[in-house]
Amino acid sequence: MRAIFIAVGSELLDKDRVDTNSLYVARKLMERGILMNMKMVVGDDLENLTWVIKNACKRAQLVVVTGGLGPTEDDLTREAAANALKKELLFKEEIVEDIRLKFRKRGLKMADINTRQAFVIKGAQVLPNPLGTAPGQYIDEEPCRLLLLPGPPREMKPMFDKVFVEKIAPLSNFFIYKRCFKFGGITESEVDAQIADIYGKYRNVRATILAAPGLIEVHLLGRSKKSVEEAQVETDAVAEKIKTGLADFLITEEDIAFEEFIVKESKRRGLTLCTAESCTGGGIGNRITDVPGSSEVFLGGVVAYSNELKQKILKVEEHTLIKHGAVSRETAREMAAGVRALTGADIAVSVTGIAGPGGSVDGKPVGLVFMHLSAAGVEQGIHKVFPGERKTIKVRTINEVFNLIKNYFKNLDDK
Amino acid sequence: MRAIFIAVGSELLDKDRVDTNSLYVARKLMERGILMNMKMVVGDDLENLTWVIKNACKRAQLVVVTGGLGPTEDDLTREAAANALKKELLFKEEIVEDIRLKFRKRGLKMADINTRQAFVIKGAQVLPNPLGTAPGQYIDEEPCRLLLLPGPPREMKPMFDKVFVEKIAPLSNFFIYKRCFKFGGITESEVDAQIADIYGKYRNVRATILAAPGLIEVHLLGRSKKSVEEAQVETDAVAEKIKTGLADFLITEEDIAFEEFIVKESKRRGLTLCTAESCTGGGIGNRITDVPGSSEVFLGGVVAYSNELKQKILKVEEHTLIKHGAVSRETAREMAAGVRALTGADIAVSVTGIAGPGGSVDGKPVGLVFMHLSAAGVEQGIHKVFPGERKTIKVRTINEVFNLIKNYFKNLDDK
Repeated sequence: MRAIFIAVGSELLDKDRVDTNSLYVARKLMERGILMNMKMVVGDDLENLTWVIKNACKRAQLVVVTGGLGPTEDDLTREAAANALKKELLFKEEIVEDIRLKFRKRGLKMADINTRQAFVIKGAQVLPNPLGTAPGQYIDEEPCRLLLLPGPPREMKPMFDKVFVEKIAPLSNFFIYKRCFKFGGITESEVDAQIADIYGKYRNVRATILAAPGLIEVHLLGRSKKSVEEAQVETDAVAEKIKTGLADFLITEEDIAFEEFIVKESKRRGLTLCTAESCTGGGIGNRITDVPGSSEVFLGGVVAYSNELKQKILKVEEHTLIKHGAVSRETAREMAAGVRALTGADIAVSVTGIAGPGGSVDGKPVGLVFMHLSAAGVEQGIHKVFPGERKTIKVRTINEVFNLIKNYFKNLDDK
Repeated sequence: MRAIFIAVGSELLDKDRVDTNSLYVARKLMERGILMNMKMVVGDDLENLTWVIKNACKRAQLVVVTGGLGPTEDDLTREAAANALKKELLFKEEIVEDIRLKFRKRGLKMADINTRQAFVIKGAQVLPNPLGTAPGQYIDEEPCRLLLLPGPPREMKPMFDKVFVEKIAPLSNFFIYKRCFKFGGITESEVDAQIADIYGKYRNVRATILAAPGLIEVHLLGRSKKSVEEAQVETDAVAEKIKTGLADFLITEEDIAFEEFIVKESKRRGLTLCTAESCTGGGIGNRITDVPGSSEVFLGGVVAYSNELKQKILKVEEHTLIKHGAVSRETAREMAAGVRALTGADIAVSVTGIAGPGGSVDGKPVGLVFMHLSAAGVEQGIHKVFPGERKTIKVRTINEVFNLIKNYFKNLDDK
């Protein structure tokens, strides 16, 4: 089954806006083995939109359109779709009543323009929109099904889910099985090299590599025309090879963020965390506290950007700063010790480095970062020279610190 | 002039990937008054891609294609474009030599497949790619110009810039004038309400509102067929009305991030900053230290997530925590005072609140955040109940704190 996605709205052609509805739809379709083979963004132009819908319906078995169902004159999807299919638009009084009721519940009077939303393509099923005024429409015809949905994601998603489960998913003749891996402390090209020779061999498993600075995800999607079990067998075979080759770098097989993993594993072990940050400026604490419930394990930390604060609060020795510099293994170690003493946390991590673009001194290049983990009986320091610009260096550093904590947990398990 | 953008690559149809080249191209075109009227993402499928390029060339005067110029069998843009235009592909030995040289410089041997990159559409201008192996191609014919560029943004951007300045911009018969505003402490719908009745009246000024949680940008783009001056007159008229209506909320007219504004204005006044963060967990420091050179004004801070740290490091009184709670005006005030005493910074800001989803107590709802600014002779506390989920509440809080600092600067200026 070929699917084409169309996002409607001139604002989506602007320099700062991206359609994200297509990602949601692509993910849902992919889960049932349906691959999107084209997507388009079209402005509010009747001739253009009519042409696009007409041709999409010729070239695919499923066309999903989002946007352009509002009440204004710019909302042209109903009319364009009717033109494209050479069908009439019928006025449905019951839709007007429904919209009027929605306004009344909010103490408002329906504007006359909202009656535009009551036009339905002949033969289409009307899809109720519990979170907005624009109903969707589904034209369930061979050879191409056409689905019209409103543009706002919070309205579109539940409406898509419903029609997907009831009407679209049953059309797919594939069974699907998924696996996911997150790796840290390794580059995208290293992961790619490990995987390249594997995934050419398994035709029914699709591997996607997603790279953030310092964090690589691999998603496997196996499909089979016979059964979930068949999809699973092949997917698991690929998964095992990937896992074996990259075991040292594996963070988790769960589809969760690195910080969620850290918080979860800290909780599970009843361990508390604290931070002493220089060049990341609070970014480690920020990521950890993005996780709901992180207050159970994260006590807090010190952002010691200036040398004075490193000495005053974290008790870094003056002679350490003079002899080795603020960006050094020794300073990182003393920062971690200092913040652990201060907070009483089980695990302290520290960071000191040069995020750039300025600040390179004494043969210490931009991107050089010293990181340290201090816990009962464990002192673990590492350093890296990270590529990229300032923000990227910060993100890489944060992920590398999480990796340091992950390895600490791993060593605890291995003992 | 109508323009269509085409991004090529099956990976861009995945559930997690968005084409961003189109945003760059859209911005450049818009600066010369050329509006993109469609964009498309097409997988690596020769028949499909040929069809798309052929039809795009029929429907626009400029078609920009990125991606699919690599050396592998999946790279089909050259062949599809030649098919679409019914032109031959010619093999250029000099391109092979050039690619071979690039490999040699990196101590590598060119693989045979790279010779695929030496095929050029008959009549096309070859566009050198200083940062990669795939050259671009420009077919400068009436009625439609076709531009083929490599997919990686760092290769695409400089190549597009060059051909844009030399070939495309001169085709536009518009003169352009831009203005930009950033507002804080106001919602998108409030800004929209202020602007709605203005921008309908000025046909040649396009207003775009961009909203982040707690931060609203308005971009104005005026165009004229006569002169830049004419475009400016109308744009300035709109700008003045917007400015007058929203003066209290204006952060800056520069196109810089809120944190850049804060760092810049602190520097200009020779003032230093420090932070005491609870629910933002380090997010304020993180944003400030995203700015190059922030070390000149940002001394550091304390992330006091636990009550113990609030007392121990920030010297918040125990009876304050007992009487008013950790999330209170009084605690915020003492946190700011504490971190200012500790660091000796000129300006201290503090935050304590409930980011959720748990933690709502004693009639204090999720989203309630107390913020405080402490400086010589100034104590300024505010509180808000922010909507949204955890991360959104954090972002809103950070922007509101920046707004507090901005208002402090403004009061200094007004004195």
